[in-house]
Amino acid sequence: MEKTEEILCHIESPWAVKQLSDSQLELLCTEIRQKLIDTVSETGGHLASNLGTVELTVALHKSFDSPQDKIIWDVGHQAYTHKLLTGRNKDFSTLRTENGISGFVRPDESEHDSFYEGHAGTSVSRAAGVAAANALKGSKNYAVAVIGDGAFGNGMVYEALDHAGSTDNRIIVILNDNEMSISENVGAMARYLASVRAKPEYYRFKTGTEKALRRIPIVGRSLSNHLFRLKTAIKNIIYSSSFFEDLGFKYIGPIDGHDINRLCEAMDTAKLVNGPVLLHVNTVKGRGYDFAENSPEKFHGISKFDINTGEPKSSSGSFSSEFGKALCEFASKDKRICAITAAMALGTGLEKFSAEYPSRFFDVGIAEEHAVTFASGLSAGGMIPVFAVYSTFMQRCVDQLIHDGALQRIKSVIAVDRAGFVGVDGETHQGLFDVALLSSLPNTTVYSPATYEELRKAMYNAFYRDDNLVVIRYPRASAGYEETKCEDVEQFGNGETALVTYGREFFNVVEAYKTLSAKGIKTRIVKLHRIKPIPEKVFEMLSGCRNIFFFEEGMKSGGIGEKLGSMLLEKNYNCSYHVTAVNDEFVTHASADSLMKRYGLDADSIVKMIEEAAI
Amino acid sequence: MEKTEEILCHIESPWAVKQLSDSQLELLCTEIRQKLIDTVSETGGHLASNLGTVELTVALHKSFDSPQDKIIWDVGHQAYTHKLLTGRNKDFSTLRTENGISGFVRPDESEHDSFYEGHAGTSVSRAAGVAAANALKGSKNYAVAVIGDGAFGNGMVYEALDHAGSTDNRIIVILNDNEMSISENVGAMARYLASVRAKPEYYRFKTGTEKALRRIPIVGRSLSNHLFRLKTAIKNIIYSSSFFEDLGFKYIGPIDGHDINRLCEAMDTAKLVNGPVLLHVNTVKGRGYDFAENSPEKFHGISKFDINTGEPKSSSGSFSSEFGKALCEFASKDKRICAITAAMALGTGLEKFSAEYPSRFFDVGIAEEHAVTFASGLSAGGMIPVFAVYSTFMQRCVDQLIHDGALQRIKSVIAVDRAGFVGVDGETHQGLFDVALLSSLPNTTVYSPATYEELRKAMYNAFYRDDNLVVIRYPRASAGYEETKCEDVEQFGNGETALVTYGREFFNVVEAYKTLSAKGIKTRIVKLHRIKPIPEKVFEMLSGCRNIFFFEEGMKSGGIGEKLGSMLLEKNYNCSYHVTAVNDEFVTHASADSLMKRYGLDADSIVKMIEEAAI
Repeated sequence: MEKTEEILCHIESPWAVKQLSDSQLELLCTEIRQKLIDTVSETGGHLASNLGTVELTVALHKSFDSPQDKIIWDVGHQAYTHKLLTGRNKDFSTLRTENGISGFVRPDESEHDSFYEGHAGTSVSRAAGVAAANALKGSKNYAVAVIGDGAFGNGMVYEALDHAGSTDNRIIVILNDNEMSISENVGAMARYLASVRAKPEYYRFKTGTEKALRRIPIVGRSLSNHLFRLKTAIKNIIYSSSFFEDLGFKYIGPIDGHDINRLCEAMDTAKLVNGPVLLHVNTVKGRGYDFAENSPEKFHGISKFDINTGEPKSSSGSFSSEFGKALCEFASKDKRICAITAAMALGTGLEKFSAEYPSRFFDVGIAEEHAVTFASGLSAGGMIPVFAVYSTFMQRCVDQLIHDGALQRIKSVIAVDRAGFVGVDGETHQGLFDVALLSSLPNTTVYSPATYEELRKAMYNAFYRDDNLVVIRYPRASAGYEETKCEDVEQFGNGETALVTYGREFFNVVEAYKTLSAKGIKTRIVKLHRIKPIPEKVFEMLSGCRNIFFFEEGMKSGGIGEKLGSMLLEKNYNCSYHVTAVNDEFVTHASADSLMKRYGLDADSIVKMIEEAAI
Repeated sequence: MEKTEEILCHIESPWAVKQLSDSQLELLCTEIRQKLIDTVSETGGHLASNLGTVELTVALHKSFDSPQDKIIWDVGHQAYTHKLLTGRNKDFSTLRTENGISGFVRPDESEHDSFYEGHAGTSVSRAAGVAAANALKGSKNYAVAVIGDGAFGNGMVYEALDHAGSTDNRIIVILNDNEMSISENVGAMARYLASVRAKPEYYRFKTGTEKALRRIPIVGRSLSNHLFRLKTAIKNIIYSSSFFEDLGFKYIGPIDGHDINRLCEAMDTAKLVNGPVLLHVNTVKGRGYDFAENSPEKFHGISKFDINTGEPKSSSGSFSSEFGKALCEFASKDKRICAITAAMALGTGLEKFSAEYPSRFFDVGIAEEHAVTFASGLSAGGMIPVFAVYSTFMQRCVDQLIHDGALQRIKSVIAVDRAGFVGVDGETHQGLFDVALLSSLPNTTVYSPATYEELRKAMYNAFYRDDNLVVIRYPRASAGYEETKCEDVEQFGNGETALVTYGREFFNVVEAYKTLSAKGIKTRIVKLHRIKPIPEKVFEMLSGCRNIFFFEEGMKSGGIGEKLGSMLLEKNYNCSYHVTAVNDEFVTHASADSLMKRYGLDADSIVKMIEEAAI
């Protein structure tokens, strides 16, 4: 069913898009959609959001001049069409593969990618900065942020609107309103947007006048602004609210986000405003592929799937789903247990909980800071809150974990999912900092279970043993099979060479241990389950070891290996010591297995290292 | 001029407040104001904000039942009156002294202090949590957040309003609008509030009806809600905007925040609403003390002062002012240099810069996250942004420093002020985590200058040598006097015992070194200026040392001492090693000098430690 491209294959830069006729643009969009579905069905990736932004992206490149005008993609996972239009069509089949096209925007791929983007809610701040720099330089270029309504729940966006709205800078915020973040949107803002979404398009009647005015150069702009002012009184009667205008933005919308002509007209109107503009665009997530349109959450980030059925090609158990299952079991016996997610109910395995215990389930939207502090309030009210969050997004609430978590000396639990190598999403999504960031917190216990049994034990400890902030971190993976006693620290074997580790890396170490053993090289494994505080028993288990190797799936600086090394030296251990971890670099996209190899953490590398050290 | 208290001395709990007549309440407020001025002139503290909330606090304790109803003070530095009314009047003269009354709210002081509070913007999230817990338990108690208009620029507040506004829970947010944060307020939100502030009080006309309705128990509440609904249509015509109602909150205000009766009426009205309420209160910062009313920024956090002149009793140079001076000098020669503050222009020494280079100066309000990401946009636009922020508030933007700073591989500079012991503000304000949090970041250089010359050198390096994210951290102090070469690392002396340190602690170490030297004990000092990456030269300087002592004014876990220890072990150094730092605890309020002693970092403790080790 291979289709040949008539238009897309000729588009090597945004300039080419500007040359196309209306019917060619339409065909282009069809070809792009087919390409997206074909590619993502093979590579996995973010499908639904990209199907929703095809026309929007084409219009952006028609109306603006990238890279002089900077198009800034919030989160960056909805920029596949942008990639196809900026010289990356040919290589697009390598999407999300090692050394291939990244699933997010990144400046080292193209001059049209203004920034590395992977976290929600940053685009408006960044655009505000670009616009301020343009103003200082006297440049007339635009800074354009493209942001989903989901990200509008994030506080940074509000901070940025508040700041940019008090300037006259040339910033255009395009609100891509698809009524979804990753899950269905929550919160009062979502309700507000829904009320606006249903209203008749505002400023539509002005477009003809605008066009005429624009032909008169300098005067045109000021006249046009005058028009805006004149309309304000009327608009305030038409609309019951003017949220964005309270924040200093001119509002245009809502515009049909699948109508290229209307989009271009609206963008051209926005460009006429001297100052901040919010352009509200309605799109449909998953547009053009029924399965995705009907289940956009499932097709948000998806692995390879069958195009004809929409079914993912592989599926297996995971720490996330085990966590969700276990939490339901605990909650069935303990009414105090509540679950909190920042718009990630599916990803963090909380769907079952949300269905079974709706009153104790809180989806706060993409608002990690609020989630932690909200948890402190729940906890003070006698509940046991569990906030499940990806490691990379946990970085968002470090101060709250210090100030509103650890310092309050009350029980709350942070389940850190996707800890360690996350893989094909790349630098912005790796879970490599959580250990370094969290292990400096007083009054805090951190567990890094290797097996599902250990995960349950850690949850039990968090609920009924440790009376403070507890962090439980686990990888984006299914667990390996190895029996452990679920103790804070355990020893296996008793060779003089020690292999120390924690979490998923345990299974690589076990494999290496077995291989080494078969070769007659005796080692011992010391596996931490509780990584903060480091259990005192570790030092007993390591006593007499002449060579100690620490294997850590995380940053070396601030990691447990470093802490243990310093403690060993302070305790006068006379041993050689070596830490294998990620050393002072961001980790680009590749499969977790491949990354294990890259950083010397797979079984083969471990075996080799021990053999060489023995020589 | 000692005045005797007639009322205040009898108030031992909020219950007593409820028994007072109108005229007694008035006298109480006068007595409280006098107490605040007298005490803070002796102890230093937050004066202006507390003078503004006297009547508001009295009304809160009259209208609500603390501690069943939880009063949650945003930031917590405006709760002096609350302390006076909840049993802490007698000990109030110990304000901000070691083992005395804290300058912030803290649960271990009183059951009326619901949480440890020190960072802005957390109260609404926390109140949302308490209200959700109340709803789950079927409790009819209220969660009341008291928050300044300055904190309304912080994104967390918006996240919390967005969430709480979508519930029916009993949360009352009291917006204490004094038109200031610490500096004058900035941003579109501030402009919006100013427009509302000027409007006629809304719901005033209803108060009589409300009172009558309230007498009819159950029916009253529902009737009253019906009234609210009826008024909505009218209100939308009266007000050009309904920002808070878009977010799901019923709006009451603006109320004169110095009229106890009106405040109590408005609070009682708020209590009748089944669901989230925003009560907008106008107060005057510094009210009742002319000097403070006229210069509220100066009297925000002030040291001891002369009551009759309003002048602080001591004043000396500081790293902050040196930083500000140096930045102006660099900026005079380099037009790319911009300064950013999150509402702390005075505290961070940027006042001069803001006056001399207004177009390159950005006060973004209490919005640390936005500040960092905004800086990345400025930087991409060719500027060199410098964001000056207190260490404790830097914790707010860790993810942005990772994702929008270090990862982008572009130049931006973070000036981390108040790094180390901050002293009398206590746990919530100590700057003890920045090193641990930031040293795990790739593509990042961290300097910790000990002298003003080193500060300038670090700034020079940041602007013209290091081509990535640069952090420069310095204490809340003036520098000591000791000549250094401003190199990344320097050695003094050559004894076999090494004293390794960085930053302000260098001066304690120098003093110890001299004392030890006079006693015939030879040591060497190795002083780091660049603490990340650790300069390789350190290892040369430490070679041959049999005893290495590291002194660090920060958290041990994740600190530089730990990193160095692990590196020494990995490099097979055969030495004894000891790190002196803060070990896994939050640091309560006391003077910086006293804290140095407490943690063994003062010269005497160092001398003692070395002498004992030598035995």
